[in-house]
Amino acid sequence: MRVVDLIRKKRDAGEHSREEIDYLVSGYTRDEIPDYQMAAWLMAVWLQGFSRSETTFLTESMLHSGEVLDLSDLPGKKVDKHSTGGVGDKTSLILAPIVAAGGLTVPMISGRGLGHTGGTLDKLESIPGFNTRLSLQEFRRVLRECGMALIGQTAEIAPADKKIYALRDATSTVENIGLICASIMSKKLAEGIDALVLDVKTGSGAFMKSEGDSVRLAEMMVETGKRMGKKVVALITDMDQPLGCTAGHANEIIECIEVLEGGGPADLRDLSLELSAWMFYLGERTKSVAEGHSLAEALIASGQAKEKFKQCIRLQGGDERVIDEPQILPVARSQVEILSSSAGYVTATDCQQFGIALAMLGGGRERKEDQIDHSVGLQFHKRVGALVEKGELLATIHYNNDAKVAEAKKLIARSYQITEETPREKRLLVRRILGA
Amino acid sequence: MRVVDLIRKKRDAGEHSREEIDYLVSGYTRDEIPDYQMAAWLMAVWLQGFSRSETTFLTESMLHSGEVLDLSDLPGKKVDKHSTGGVGDKTSLILAPIVAAGGLTVPMISGRGLGHTGGTLDKLESIPGFNTRLSLQEFRRVLRECGMALIGQTAEIAPADKKIYALRDATSTVENIGLICASIMSKKLAEGIDALVLDVKTGSGAFMKSEGDSVRLAEMMVETGKRMGKKVVALITDMDQPLGCTAGHANEIIECIEVLEGGGPADLRDLSLELSAWMFYLGERTKSVAEGHSLAEALIASGQAKEKFKQCIRLQGGDERVIDEPQILPVARSQVEILSSSAGYVTATDCQQFGIALAMLGGGRERKEDQIDHSVGLQFHKRVGALVEKGELLATIHYNNDAKVAEAKKLIARSYQITEETPREKRLLVRRILGA
Repeated sequence: MRVVDLIRKKRDAGEHSREEIDYLVSGYTRDEIPDYQMAAWLMAVWLQGFSRSETTFLTESMLHSGEVLDLSDLPGKKVDKHSTGGVGDKTSLILAPIVAAGGLTVPMISGRGLGHTGGTLDKLESIPGFNTRLSLQEFRRVLRECGMALIGQTAEIAPADKKIYALRDATSTVENIGLICASIMSKKLAEGIDALVLDVKTGSGAFMKSEGDSVRLAEMMVETGKRMGKKVVALITDMDQPLGCTAGHANEIIECIEVLEGGGPADLRDLSLELSAWMFYLGERTKSVAEGHSLAEALIASGQAKEKFKQCIRLQGGDERVIDEPQILPVARSQVEILSSSAGYVTATDCQQFGIALAMLGGGRERKEDQIDHSVGLQFHKRVGALVEKGELLATIHYNNDAKVAEAKKLIARSYQITEETPREKRLLVRRILGA
Repeated sequence: MRVVDLIRKKRDAGEHSREEIDYLVSGYTRDEIPDYQMAAWLMAVWLQGFSRSETTFLTESMLHSGEVLDLSDLPGKKVDKHSTGGVGDKTSLILAPIVAAGGLTVPMISGRGLGHTGGTLDKLESIPGFNTRLSLQEFRRVLRECGMALIGQTAEIAPADKKIYALRDATSTVENIGLICASIMSKKLAEGIDALVLDVKTGSGAFMKSEGDSVRLAEMMVETGKRMGKKVVALITDMDQPLGCTAGHANEIIECIEVLEGGGPADLRDLSLELSAWMFYLGERTKSVAEGHSLAEALIASGQAKEKFKQCIRLQGGDERVIDEPQILPVARSQVEILSSSAGYVTATDCQQFGIALAMLGGGRERKEDQIDHSVGLQFHKRVGALVEKGELLATIHYNNDAKVAEAKKLIARSYQITEETPREKRLLVRRILGA
């Protein structure tokens, strides 16, 4: 087999065999295939597409490029959730405690924010002392003790994906459904899970802006998971506006605690319960999704979910007082309000712009090596569908950097579309794709 | 400007500006842009295409990446010919002596054979002592003394093309009309010529198999030359069968000498005269192409063209006795004949297979570093249109390697299509595209 011939095959829209994909992935991981040949191949894949079997082959190849956790010695089914990312998307920090409190094991390996999206690890690191860089051995210990653990990708997990992802990032070959699917699924399946709930975001704040693309990605992931013997469901959910009322790091932690205490914004609570319910169902903890829903609600009402989060924070080195005294989280120095310049209905938001404004204020990163300011954030006071008066409060910026706030303010103000038309109701759960 | 954005732009079928192309080419030549980004960009170009202006920008960028010869101190117009390559294509060794004998300067920087095609430099090197690796200073001295010189690409000429070509070769991004055009034209225009005659081959033995592709490449090259202020014409000529009656190295030199002596195969003589005539016309040596034709015939008849070739061989260190005693050229040890297995008309040949068979016998190279056996070769006894009896001689193989000859023989025999239909006559000159 010669790499040039494989590149030519994909360039000419051919379909690769399992052996061909294995040859490329293992050769690249062992540094036998140079970056430039892999880059040409990735661009050919991007432009000519990747079939479902090719996606499965790539997923398996990348999965087996490193360690695949065997958690069979831990009690209960192992379930996880993955979101394709958006603005204000913080459900992991709510559902992991709920599901672990319910008796399942949640071995969650998460990512960091990049571009306009936030990342679970970054949010957790706004809690003083919280350590997301556990070794796999420590990860296993925390899991055994409290049923959940939240860490970042380690060098042992899917090293091929790590190397290929870095190359995709440098060669504009990121946004391809087959490649995204294989990247997500290889990492998630390396966690040694039995079932996976996927939250595929769609809309102006998602990576996939159109529902069609989101559905295609969801179907690809569900089928890949199924082919590999896992129970998988994908929920296609709205990201045309931020999830919940906050974006940022410390303030998203506060919002999560509110939900775990039985409060919080309705959309965030509803989606967290729905995702938890599916995890309970796929993890065979409940006989139906509806029963999973009731269980999740009960675990919040009893305070067990909140206690579980507290325990996890403590076990991962964080300051657990944060649960009862959220004021110990970092707070931004200044605030500025954004008022509506006209009266009418909020008919839409350009949600990605909120994420960009937040990153601009230090709450996101353009490059992987950038530092994050955990205290800055946005508060959203009006959701799509709301009626606003001229001069009414739309959003609040919590910031430290005076130099950037004017630009961020302008960006946010421009992202609200206010018209006289009564808007159609937005569905939070757009569609469900079931592979289990 | 960021390379990832330029890759994305081409990936999304955008059109590059001159500044963008310059940024890519100069950054890559200075090793500031890594191979993998260039590779991804090249694949995007391959799949999304390159406009005429982009092709001109790339040509100019690569041209100015190195030295552009200034031959204005030499007498007469400087003209050259370039062929896109085929099997048995040896016209350079005939027309350069004719045109130099006619008073124009022919600064010819040629290539080597690769894959199934032969290369001018390889053919010349079958002449004992002939040095194709002159420095630019020696090149200039030979040109001044005899009006022609034949060398390979030096490190000073279009270094960007050299680097990009090597990358294309390793990433299956060679066969793209815009990239081929820029590669050819940047090298040819670096010769400091006033006019260029292009021989674009079409058919089973050419890189461009279809007439449509050949015409598109020819038009692209003619327009690029025109935009850069050069007189250019492209002749689209047949490569559905070998040019002349031989392929190989030493035996092609013999065939060239035959034409320079007034003999040789009709197709080779006709095309060499036609190309010479256009060089005379574009180089303003004659008022018309017809007049150029007569001049070329006269220079053969008078023996001046042959004397010019002799002089050039001497000046480049070769054994000039070869002109009168071709038996000093290397000769293969063995011969085998290929006979027709049926009676009928030769209606077509799969010309590329002849080149592959020749390479298999050592008369070509698969990789750039391969050595060539100059003595092996093929003789073709029947052209397309000929009537053959069963058992009649089709071709002769001159070879040294017994292990490979059976396979080569089979390949050649299979490449003749013999049927009972009277074939349509093949035109040698398919079409002409004029930019001058």
